[in-house]
Amino acid sequence: TEREFVVKDFRLDSGQVLPLARIRYVTTGRRDQRAENVVLVPSWYTGTIEDNLYLVDAEAGIDPAKYFVVFTELFGSGKSSSPSNTPKPFDGPRFPVTTIRDNVRICHQLLFGKLKVRRLCSVVGFSMGAQQAFQWAVSYPDQVESIVPVCGTAKTYHHGVVRLESAISCLQADANWNNGDLLGPLEKGAEAWARHWAAWVYSQEWWRKELFRRNGHASPQDVIKFFVSRFDSSKANDVVLQARTWQRHDVGGSPGFDGDVEAALRSIRARVLYMPGETDLYFPMTDARYEMQHLKHAVWKPMPSLWGHPAGAGWSDKDKQLILKSIRTVLSE
Amino acid sequence: TEREFVVKDFRLDSGQVLPLARIRYVTTGRRDQRAENVVLVPSWYTGTIEDNLYLVDAEAGIDPAKYFVVFTELFGSGKSSSPSNTPKPFDGPRFPVTTIRDNVRICHQLLFGKLKVRRLCSVVGFSMGAQQAFQWAVSYPDQVESIVPVCGTAKTYHHGVVRLESAISCLQADANWNNGDLLGPLEKGAEAWARHWAAWVYSQEWWRKELFRRNGHASPQDVIKFFVSRFDSSKANDVVLQARTWQRHDVGGSPGFDGDVEAALRSIRARVLYMPGETDLYFPMTDARYEMQHLKHAVWKPMPSLWGHPAGAGWSDKDKQLILKSIRTVLSE
Repeated sequence: TEREFVVKDFRLDSGQVLPLARIRYVTTGRRDQRAENVVLVPSWYTGTIEDNLYLVDAEAGIDPAKYFVVFTELFGSGKSSSPSNTPKPFDGPRFPVTTIRDNVRICHQLLFGKLKVRRLCSVVGFSMGAQQAFQWAVSYPDQVESIVPVCGTAKTYHHGVVRLESAISCLQADANWNNGDLLGPLEKGAEAWARHWAAWVYSQEWWRKELFRRNGHASPQDVIKFFVSRFDSSKANDVVLQARTWQRHDVGGSPGFDGDVEAALRSIRARVLYMPGETDLYFPMTDARYEMQHLKHAVWKPMPSLWGHPAGAGWSDKDKQLILKSIRTVLSE
Repeated sequence: TEREFVVKDFRLDSGQVLPLARIRYVTTGRRDQRAENVVLVPSWYTGTIEDNLYLVDAEAGIDPAKYFVVFTELFGSGKSSSPSNTPKPFDGPRFPVTTIRDNVRICHQLLFGKLKVRRLCSVVGFSMGAQQAFQWAVSYPDQVESIVPVCGTAKTYHHGVVRLESAISCLQADANWNNGDLLGPLEKGAEAWARHWAAWVYSQEWWRKELFRRNGHASPQDVIKFFVSRFDSSKANDVVLQARTWQRHDVGGSPGFDGDVEAALRSIRARVLYMPGETDLYFPMTDARYEMQHLKHAVWKPMPSLWGHPAGAGWSDKDKQLILKSIRTVLSE
């Protein structure tokens, strides 16, 4: 069932107040009597709820007969509150910058308020969904039993910040950008934007071995065309907002940790099944290993995949099966 | 001594003919009587001869008392024939696309014609210099004793092509680009260009560990500013030309190999000291390992460095010492 959760006068980390903060969500399955059979699956960068529905799988993944699963979409998704769907004075580039903590806080209100959840069995998230999973574990240590961060870390380190600046600057270079009050479609900006993501998203070996053929693409040029076709420049401010959210993420910035990411990681009481991607260029293994040193109840389960970052989105069947199986194991423990 | 080598009516791989093809070069040391004490050091992407002079080091590197060292600059360097210094009809974006083979062929004329070299002890090259080293070994198997390719492969695989498209598209997105006949400075394009290179050049761990402080930069923003300051958009066509040269490289495209990179690698008779960078995102270890399987007389010596691609440029002292020592070893064998 698709629903919308609305909070009036939602105060953001930035201090700005959204008059109407809306979060798109979908639930599957049923709450048990104690409302303790709940799994949360937050969305990833530019991703939709639909992109995550594959996780509910009676055979291999989250069993819909057992679990009440809540799927949410990030601010900036285009359906949750976003630059593209918010009236003045917060339209377009005037939409305030949101943080992962803002997203987690409003989803907490949704789950523990409106949906009367008592406890989360797990927060399962890929990429910016993994960022949200870590934040849940830090912000609500008594309410989250486990998290499964897949291809995502608890902080965006400098490289991620610079790389996302690189992505955003592709749009800003377009003559129609005009500080986000677009003068027209971002055709040239979109060409650069698509090439940015195409070059970063998969592993170098994925390209050499021409695994793009498994996506039905005959050449690297076809892959680039696909990325161009997926980008709708009328939503440019939405993707920039989510990139800004991504850039700012740091569980160490949570209240009480004074910027200390290691202390925030050490505070996590939830079981963590940490699934970095072995060829992920956004959230590299080295960053995940660094964080792993500071997690107390974590199992290390890197994904051996050539699919780079989207190993964690299950774009290849082998990766998908590993994700489903791993989540099922966590939930059964 | 700085010199220029000029060839009239130089025919390029593309079939186009440059009326005056010019290559900037510098030599150090003296040819011995048999002209067999020669080392060639070709330049890297946007690099100058000066960037490579550190390799001549009486204590640790190529001994100037023993070796005659020839340094050359690629077409598009701004001093060798380039879009920025060539008259009509080959000025700016009309400058024909050059290949690594074109660069190697004209340098062969310089060395074995004008400079009367009989044999090359070694071709030592970083990045696009490594591409040239591999091409020398394939094109002139009887005239090259050894090559030292550092952070560079014998072919630009798909990822490199796409990544360089991403870089070029940053300039193309600028309103002043105008198909390379610039209408003014590429300010926004330069911002995107600088961020592209900043994000790709170092390793993710270099950023997390803030090794930029060793370059005197206080923050990632300072690193970006540095890259912006280094880019002169009046030379935009030069950097695009060199990127096109880089993209097209494939020793398998050499005459007689019919596009078969493995056959071309197997044909190499020179000793190869193969020095990929362990955190190089342009020329990843996986590509180098693949090539290594097809080399007959190669020693594998990866560079354990967090400096990403410029490990091979000796930007950090530890890497520099390893390069110097390795070259010295090759030359003494």
